[in-house]
Amino acid sequence: MLTREDNEFITRTGPGTPMGDLWRRFWVPALLSTELPDPDCPPVRIKLLNEDLVAFRDTTGKVGLFAANCPHRGASLFFGRNEEEGLRCVYHGWKFDVTGACVDMPNEPPESNFKHKIHHTAYPCLERAGIIWTYMGPRLSTGSGNDLPAFPELEWTQVPEGQYVVGKFLVNSNYLQALEGDIDNSHVPFAHGLLTDPGPSFIERVRGAGRLRQQQQVRSTPGLNTNLLFAQDITPRSVVTETDYGVMMGWRRDADPENYYWRINHWMLPSHVMLASPPGSNMTCNSRVPMDDENSWHFRVSWNSSRPLSDEELNFIKNSGLNYPELEPGTFRPKANKDNDYLIDREWQRSGSVTGIKGTTQQDRAVTESMGAIYDRTKEHLGTSDTVIIAMRRKLMKVARELAEGREPYAATHSEVYRRRGVDMLLKRNASWEEGARELITVGSK
Amino acid sequence: MLTREDNEFITRTGPGTPMGDLWRRFWVPALLSTELPDPDCPPVRIKLLNEDLVAFRDTTGKVGLFAANCPHRGASLFFGRNEEEGLRCVYHGWKFDVTGACVDMPNEPPESNFKHKIHHTAYPCLERAGIIWTYMGPRLSTGSGNDLPAFPELEWTQVPEGQYVVGKFLVNSNYLQALEGDIDNSHVPFAHGLLTDPGPSFIERVRGAGRLRQQQQVRSTPGLNTNLLFAQDITPRSVVTETDYGVMMGWRRDADPENYYWRINHWMLPSHVMLASPPGSNMTCNSRVPMDDENSWHFRVSWNSSRPLSDEELNFIKNSGLNYPELEPGTFRPKANKDNDYLIDREWQRSGSVTGIKGTTQQDRAVTESMGAIYDRTKEHLGTSDTVIIAMRRKLMKVARELAEGREPYAATHSEVYRRRGVDMLLKRNASWEEGARELITVGSK
Amino acid sequence: MLTREDNEFITRTGPGTPMGDLWRRFWVPALLSTELPDPDCPPVRIKLLNEDLVAFRDTTGKVGLFAANCPHRGASLFFGRNEEEGLRCVYHGWKFDVTGACVDMPNEPPESNFKHKIHHTAYPCLERAGIIWTYMGPRLSTGSGNDLPAFPELEWTQVPEGQYVVGKFLVNSNYLQALEGDIDNSHVPFAHGLLTDPGPSFIERVRGAGRLRQQQQVRSTPGLNTNLLFAQDITPRSVVTETDYGVMMGWRRDADPENYYWRINHWMLPSHVMLASPPGSNMTCNSRVPMDDENSWHFRVSWNSSRPLSDEELNFIKNSGLNYPELEPGTFRPKANKDNDYLIDREWQRSGSVTGIKGTTQQDRAVTESMGAIYDRTKEHLGTSDTVIIAMRRKLMKVARELAEGREPYAATHSEVYRRRGVDMLLKRNASWEEGARELITVGSK
Repeated sequence: MLTREDNEFITRTGPGTPMGDLWRRFWVPALLSTELPDPDCPPVRIKLLNEDLVAFRDTTGKVGLFAANCPHRGASLFFGRNEEEGLRCVYHGWKFDVTGACVDMPNEPPESNFKHKIHHTAYPCLERAGIIWTYMGPRLSTGSGNDLPAFPELEWTQVPEGQYVVGKFLVNSNYLQALEGDIDNSHVPFAHGLLTDPGPSFIERVRGAGRLRQQQQVRSTPGLNTNLLFAQDITPRSVVTETDYGVMMGWRRDADPENYYWRINHWMLPSHVMLASPPGSNMTCNSRVPMDDENSWHFRVSWNSSRPLSDEELNFIKNSGLNYPELEPGTFRPKANKDNDYLIDREWQRSGSVTGIKGTTQQDRAVTESMGAIYDRTKEHLGTSDTVIIAMRRKLMKVARELAEGREPYAATHSEVYRRRGVDMLLKRNASWEEGARELITVGSK
Repeated sequence: MLTREDNEFITRTGPGTPMGDLWRRFWVPALLSTELPDPDCPPVRIKLLNEDLVAFRDTTGKVGLFAANCPHRGASLFFGRNEEEGLRCVYHGWKFDVTGACVDMPNEPPESNFKHKIHHTAYPCLERAGIIWTYMGPRLSTGSGNDLPAFPELEWTQVPEGQYVVGKFLVNSNYLQALEGDIDNSHVPFAHGLLTDPGPSFIERVRGAGRLRQQQQVRSTPGLNTNLLFAQDITPRSVVTETDYGVMMGWRRDADPENYYWRINHWMLPSHVMLASPPGSNMTCNSRVPMDDENSWHFRVSWNSSRPLSDEELNFIKNSGLNYPELEPGTFRPKANKDNDYLIDREWQRSGSVTGIKGTTQQDRAVTESMGAIYDRTKEHLGTSDTVIIAMRRKLMKVARELAEGREPYAATHSEVYRRRGVDMLLKRNASWEEGARELITVGSK
Repeated sequence: MLTREDNEFITRTGPGTPMGDLWRRFWVPALLSTELPDPDCPPVRIKLLNEDLVAFRDTTGKVGLFAANCPHRGASLFFGRNEEEGLRCVYHGWKFDVTGACVDMPNEPPESNFKHKIHHTAYPCLERAGIIWTYMGPRLSTGSGNDLPAFPELEWTQVPEGQYVVGKFLVNSNYLQALEGDIDNSHVPFAHGLLTDPGPSFIERVRGAGRLRQQQQVRSTPGLNTNLLFAQDITPRSVVTETDYGVMMGWRRDADPENYYWRINHWMLPSHVMLASPPGSNMTCNSRVPMDDENSWHFRVSWNSSRPLSDEELNFIKNSGLNYPELEPGTFRPKANKDNDYLIDREWQRSGSVTGIKGTTQQDRAVTESMGAIYDRTKEHLGTSDTVIIAMRRKLMKVARELAEGREPYAATHSEVYRRRGVDMLLKRNASWEEGARELITVGSK
């Protein structure tokens, strides 16, 4: 439970809010590279952290990300003409390069031309892993030439093209409740559960080992029957460790009298979640970015550390409907959405699926968006299964409060802390999970 | 005319408002029984008194009515799985019975399970006359076993199945202006008027006895030509009497030199209106319930005290379009609504109908909804024809103010005061209307 | 740049606001005469200056313009029955003539009838140039019989039928940013520009004399090649003179070593803009009227002082799509609007049009509406090209502040000050523009 004040504090990310200031210390995913496919292609609108922006790709391929309205008299630069290394406002012809410098002011006579005085709000951009990232915060006083924070060394941003795939989807809720779902392993048997054999009682079936499985086959470490491990213990214990980058969390299930089955995830500031996957298998990361306070962007990444994804894998991820949702044409809004109750099939809910809703992200959005656009956390009742939620919120608010007092977030300028992977594994019951997992969760150590 | 403060006072019914507190002392119609047709059928969303709710019918047929959001982490219980005498949230599997008791918390380990501490907001429900009723207020300290108020003995809730029929419709305005229309007999010749023979002047025709009639044949006491009585006196005098249950009102028209023609209606707290009907004929009651402050539910009941309704009668009520409106499929919103100007036919308005709009409830909604979502009563100009409106508002505000001072409304706990019928009748000009009608308006006395 | 306070001051026109009070000192275009084509035709809804109104034409052809809601119990008079020199509310039959007098109150008995006490809010109307004009302000204390201000003698309201044509369009922005576009000659080569021959650089082409032209042929004084004059100097200097009626403004371009090319426009209170046209040619006036603070009406007039418009001219103005926009059927909203990005053609923007948007008014709306519903002028950066904008705003705020102090606006009661035309002309470089244009800009002097 949060107080009303804390709930406001943690959910609001507009300019000038404490949480908005924190978000503006990090490189954030802004849009897909494919949204700006070619040099001098049409600009696109994008809203991030409650700011209306326009993105464009210039003649040499560089990306510009501008405040949407022209600094002269406010016409939207979305209608701008993208030409010769700059975007020209069509109202009076002012032109800006990707840095925001006004490079032409053709409607002013030479004697009164003041283009050198005009610098439009332009956020620096980088392209990594098929995503255009931006940094919307203040420049650093590094003393060195570069006044931008280093780019976070998330594994999937470091692997060659072909080894990753990225989807982007609109979520009609505040970022935080979406993020809370990402770090919450406790909901998996329910929101993502299937009933394999019909019986008189759902809960008996859930509790009957082997009778529940996830809609999407969970990838397992060779030798582990993950579905079985999941199904035979639906009340995992969770432990957390605060880290430089955020929170490392372990979900522990009874495997056999000697061993625990561990799933270890990472939440990384501000909102990347590295999901547990067996070493060597394809991995998944969810990154959430506030659009405004009532909507957020979901970037969902799958990658393999060591080899290209196969066509079959790519096809499943992109087109099965179980991983990426099908989108309304020309938008990032899923076809199954809150206005149509996610196309819930009540008969299937009765007979085979816990939710009656198809696809992991749809199930997540059904529970997340139905909390309301900004979930009122004064009304919740948390249990031990919510340990990770509590830890994440505390860390997030702590770092934001420290920033408000002048202490910059460590992770924002220490890109190497992002070199972490999620993992699942068996460990002796008396072993330390952090010791046991240390090598497997560290990118580059293997 | 009301002051701005009184208009706020009388129209707002959210939790914590004085009028909201008053509404929460009464059993109110919540939804139709047919909306939950079977045990374990899909839950439905419903909004009442500004509260978002989810209704479901459990395995044994009992109805549950819950605050919409799960008390754990807020996912909507609308997506819940309705199974074995309870509704299970699909986020983490918490399950609640119709009383709101948490009967299962499968994601928490035994040592930390706290289901006995969780009691979800659940409003008690009763089914009467095809309607699921709910009581959203505080429990009574009766000393006896039952801590709920007795159910109001409205005649149509006491007759056997087959003798009543109920419709439910969405009205896009605050409940009060809809209620004001229900008690207002003065508008009938206008909003519901037809012109029987075309002539040069509407008003001459209206005032020419026999030339105006209602679109829907008014049922008459045998021997009374009600249409003629209506038409020959379009300026009825109204008298009111404050009662235990609300207000009894009489509309008096000149019938002949010796007699008055009386139509006697009742407004019963909080918003049932018993319309005048000849003894023995089918009767009508309108019940209004706030959805939110800008929309309301209209329950419209027809019944016969002594015999089942015939197929012909049911067909007329349900399908003629003159009584119940045709609805947009899958909703309770009439097809003729404010977004299409109620399908007004201006040519028909010119030649035959006062409004050019088809159907009694459409005509009522056209005048009621076009006042604005919450009518600004600081701008009105009331006359003697509005005597009943003034009396109803005064009583409603008086009872709400008394409640705010700690005096419970009498009618809420005295169910027998609801045993009243509307009636029409001839009475000698020097007779007392209350004496003359006493027997006919009392259910059970005949 | 305006302060936040001034931006509120100048954009808000509801009842009781200072700028709303100023607007209510002038006759304003309310709707097209064709919207009320016949006596006793159906009423229409119209919103002006944030007031909901209903207009109707009575049996003898007079126009009534009423506050939308009946003064009795608030039903909308839009549903009223238009009959025999008055509009009758269909709720209880009250009837009003065009002056707002209640001429019938049929639901009240004679002894309590109070129709003589009821005077509904009714704004006086006049019809000029195919437009129904209204005056929404206080009556004058003239001592004479007429207590209304004289009608402004705009030339196009004085010429015979056949010599003018009027269009009305909905603009989804505050009136002021639309008005600012009307007086701004500096945007013409950009927002309305075409590129005549493709080349490597837009700006080189713009600056290459003769290579840029307007999408719509600019009408020229015989002997002047206006397109060439426009194209060879895209940085016109502007000068302004405050006048009784508002602001006269001159846009000066270099023509040849001896002469300047001048375009002289007038902004007339509250929001008529007379555009420069060669003497004798067809002329254009844009009149803007606030609908509410976030939307405005655009009345666009073309006329000829001395002869009827030809069928060919009328056809071009109304149907080419370059002058009047094509409208959504049954509305005044253009088909190309902000919801579809004005049907921008990005390929055409690349190859031939600065905006890629077809039609002058569409181009204007693209830049105007994309500023946001109420443009935030605290963020703008004005240059010398914005001299006229600054002068107009200053005058508008000055007159409104004077009115707030009790000084009535001169133009509102001196109709003759509106006898002005826009004009274009060559003048010797050392000549005074005001002297040189004096005769040509004065209606009736020629």
